[in-house]
Amino acid sequence: MRDLPEQIEGYGAVRAHDDGTGPAPCRSKLLADLDAAIAACELSDGATVSFHHHLRNGDAVLNMVLDRLAARGLKNLHVAATSIFPVHAPLVGHIRAGTVTRLSASFISGPVGEAISHGLVPHPVVLRTHGGRARALDMGELQVDAAFVAAPAADEMGNLSGRVGPTACGTLGYPLTDVEVARRVIAVTDTLVPFPAPAIDIPQGKVHHVVAVDRIGDPTGIASGTTTPATDPVSTRIGDTAAAVIAASGLLADGFSFQTGAGGISLCTAAAVGRLMTDQGVTGSFCAGGITGFHVDMLNAGLFRALMDVQCFDLAAVRSYQSDPRHQMMSAATYAAPHIGGAVVDRVDAVVLGAAEVDLAFNVNVTTKAGGIVIGGSGGHADTAAGARLTILTTRLTAAGFPKIVPHVGTLTTPGATVDVVVTDHGIAVNPLRPALTERLHAAGLALCGIETLCDQAARLATRPAPPNPSGRIVAVSEYRDGSVTDVIRQIEDGHTNA
Amino acid sequence: MRDLPEQIEGYGAVRAHDDGTGPAPCRSKLLADLDAAIAACELSDGATVSFHHHLRNGDAVLNMVLDRLAARGLKNLHVAATSIFPVHAPLVGHIRAGTVTRLSASFISGPVGEAISHGLVPHPVVLRTHGGRARALDMGELQVDAAFVAAPAADEMGNLSGRVGPTACGTLGYPLTDVEVARRVIAVTDTLVPFPAPAIDIPQGKVHHVVAVDRIGDPTGIASGTTTPATDPVSTRIGDTAAAVIAASGLLADGFSFQTGAGGISLCTAAAVGRLMTDQGVTGSFCAGGITGFHVDMLNAGLFRALMDVQCFDLAAVRSYQSDPRHQMMSAATYAAPHIGGAVVDRVDAVVLGAAEVDLAFNVNVTTKAGGIVIGGSGGHADTAAGARLTILTTRLTAAGFPKIVPHVGTLTTPGATVDVVVTDHGIAVNPLRPALTERLHAAGLALCGIETLCDQAARLATRPAPPNPSGRIVAVSEYRDGSVTDVIRQIEDGHTNA
Repeated sequence: MRDLPEQIEGYGAVRAHDDGTGPAPCRSKLLADLDAAIAACELSDGATVSFHHHLRNGDAVLNMVLDRLAARGLKNLHVAATSIFPVHAPLVGHIRAGTVTRLSASFISGPVGEAISHGLVPHPVVLRTHGGRARALDMGELQVDAAFVAAPAADEMGNLSGRVGPTACGTLGYPLTDVEVARRVIAVTDTLVPFPAPAIDIPQGKVHHVVAVDRIGDPTGIASGTTTPATDPVSTRIGDTAAAVIAASGLLADGFSFQTGAGGISLCTAAAVGRLMTDQGVTGSFCAGGITGFHVDMLNAGLFRALMDVQCFDLAAVRSYQSDPRHQMMSAATYAAPHIGGAVVDRVDAVVLGAAEVDLAFNVNVTTKAGGIVIGGSGGHADTAAGARLTILTTRLTAAGFPKIVPHVGTLTTPGATVDVVVTDHGIAVNPLRPALTERLHAAGLALCGIETLCDQAARLATRPAPPNPSGRIVAVSEYRDGSVTDVIRQIEDGHTNA
Repeated sequence: MRDLPEQIEGYGAVRAHDDGTGPAPCRSKLLADLDAAIAACELSDGATVSFHHHLRNGDAVLNMVLDRLAARGLKNLHVAATSIFPVHAPLVGHIRAGTVTRLSASFISGPVGEAISHGLVPHPVVLRTHGGRARALDMGELQVDAAFVAAPAADEMGNLSGRVGPTACGTLGYPLTDVEVARRVIAVTDTLVPFPAPAIDIPQGKVHHVVAVDRIGDPTGIASGTTTPATDPVSTRIGDTAAAVIAASGLLADGFSFQTGAGGISLCTAAAVGRLMTDQGVTGSFCAGGITGFHVDMLNAGLFRALMDVQCFDLAAVRSYQSDPRHQMMSAATYAAPHIGGAVVDRVDAVVLGAAEVDLAFNVNVTTKAGGIVIGGSGGHADTAAGARLTILTTRLTAAGFPKIVPHVGTLTTPGATVDVVVTDHGIAVNPLRPALTERLHAAGLALCGIETLCDQAARLATRPAPPNPSGRIVAVSEYRDGSVTDVIRQIEDGHTNA
């Protein structure tokens, strides 16, 4: 022991080193099972547990963890998921049992959405955008006690990879944001690899415990729904029209950046844009967002030079991320958070989005279906609409007999002020807030109409009237990316008939 | 505007969305010059500014930034660097002028070290280990107002790469920790690339401003000092002996993990260990720490299957990181921080370290030279010694005529309780706290002696007596990785003659 003063001017109090070695080195974070990890996190009633949706409708981790939390007798938990899918139906049982009484997510589809609309969750569910959720985490509005990371591969120190193992899902953009702020992080893997894991996507410094289980999910569930361009003539026509709008906007020049969803019409648009780029010799810069094999094909065709990927939407995208350094991961925060000043969405030239409903003020609903049942939420919808230079909504005028262009959307997810153009199978309407864009599309010879015209036509084509919105208590709150509230979702009364 | 309640039970107060688009998208973080970036950070007198040393003795950014801070008339700044090299001599002028009055770092060599020892810095300098600095940042003990990141390449949104551009330095493990906590992050680059940057090492979500300058440094300065094995017979003998110790310890089996510094004797040891591994058919798991071309060669020879790299020590390592996915980056926190529970140093089987002095309690000094002038600091020395299963100190008995095995080290950097073996050109001494290791080395036929014997021999071989330690005011504090104090460094009196 050195002879040290107790206090040093300009430094402060001195805590003398005790000549020991300090805490013993920690050479493994592997615990026996989920129960041990849950115990190690000292979770108590009312805790917030977070999950991500990279395994989409193939995810087994959320159900597995909630079963164990329930078995331990925990109550009043808050499940802070990035997205909830039909595969998470067992969550309804945990809500009924009082294990889970709060829920927040960016997208909720399937039985859990129905349960919310029927008033099963005692506290209002909070629906956030992907960027808004990252902001809420960063700013401490959403505090997570334990983040459970479904890890396709992990070593026993907690280095996690989305690129290795039978359940490889590609990038891990969503948990990358959770692990920065969660009080505890538990990696759940079915592929324990020797230290150090190859292709580390989340480093060990962010992970507290590792648990190995038989399987974290079904990789075939990653590609939920279509991730290829639609081939029917209506979708093709909408896609061609949307591509013509992008070309007419003046944005389709070298360096062009692009985002689409994974839906059939969105990818039809991407295909049409790709043909225009080839014809005109345009080389784009990047595609962003959730990435499909179709985007990978565009990269490999030389149409773009990079992919910025928050989540792989299919296994072709996973394979690309495994092997191509031009295909890079971004976190949810980097992708879409509004508080950092310059998210990737801010660099997107054109985004093509879908809609459940659009109204006369160009407001978009992607949260509830006709009748008011929760079927989704913003995900990145409102984020990309706010960031991109050109936001195009593509939709048919009707679906399932209901009109999709309506006087007032059932739920306001994405504010009309951030939507530039609506492209339908019966015409194009430009937001009157964008006179310069109207000018350009006119000059390019595109026929435009007012949104009112499309709304009238939709009403004529509809075979069923839009049912009234439910009027019960507030069961969910739709937050904009900055935390302000765009709308509330109300409980469906008993006996109310839904579409 | 929707009709929203002001308050929702179970949710709280409602801030209604104002139907606007929110803040305008930010499509570039590029500012005109360093002055604009400094102004944007609103730095004031007494601010803490941080720097990293990936460009080592080729770094131009610290000097450049301090010149601008001085020109703006700022005073009493705290420079929180990872390491200071001879190239940073102009910092002495900024200290004299009162621009900088506080300094902290993990390693300080050259004129700044001399200035500290002569009492030029008004407040005690804080010397932390690499892991201790990361811990202090994470825990808020070290609060950074602006982190300046020398970025070999950057796009205008702040995606940074160490793998691109004429000044490519490889991994960016040190700033990776700073950018997580600094109030503002300024990237300084000489290679502005189109968005998105390829091979992103630090993502845009962590960077506030980007500034382009003519050059951030001289890449030939990255390899400061030797990064190849020494070839002289004394070094070779020490290296062979150290390798024999590792073999005798029982650790040299499949999965073996290894760390060495970049010095000649350390790499001699690595070469000897490599030969033993080849002879015995052992395949190791990883090498960690600062990485040299020699470590890359061992990877490519199949002796190890991964490199965990906090900093590339030469251009061969840079090239490897640019192209080989087995060569992975780790942050300073992941590498060495003691508060996370399981740093990479905890997974190292054997580490070979150097020493300025070792004493009878196996305490090590790598902070001051004989006479007390600051010539270094722990860097990762104390971190790896605490984490590794086997810590070997290699040293000659004397240097420049002074003894290196001494009764008491001039400055205690690394506690003897974490040091297992001292290997010299005149014998091997095992720490008496490790009887089982003594047993194994005996069994392997290695001749051992007491540390006292080595100390006596060093005294006999020395041609100059160890000068007394300086006795002036405290000019620096040596912190252990947990923030406790291992020692203080005192001012050299005027007229005192130094070696």
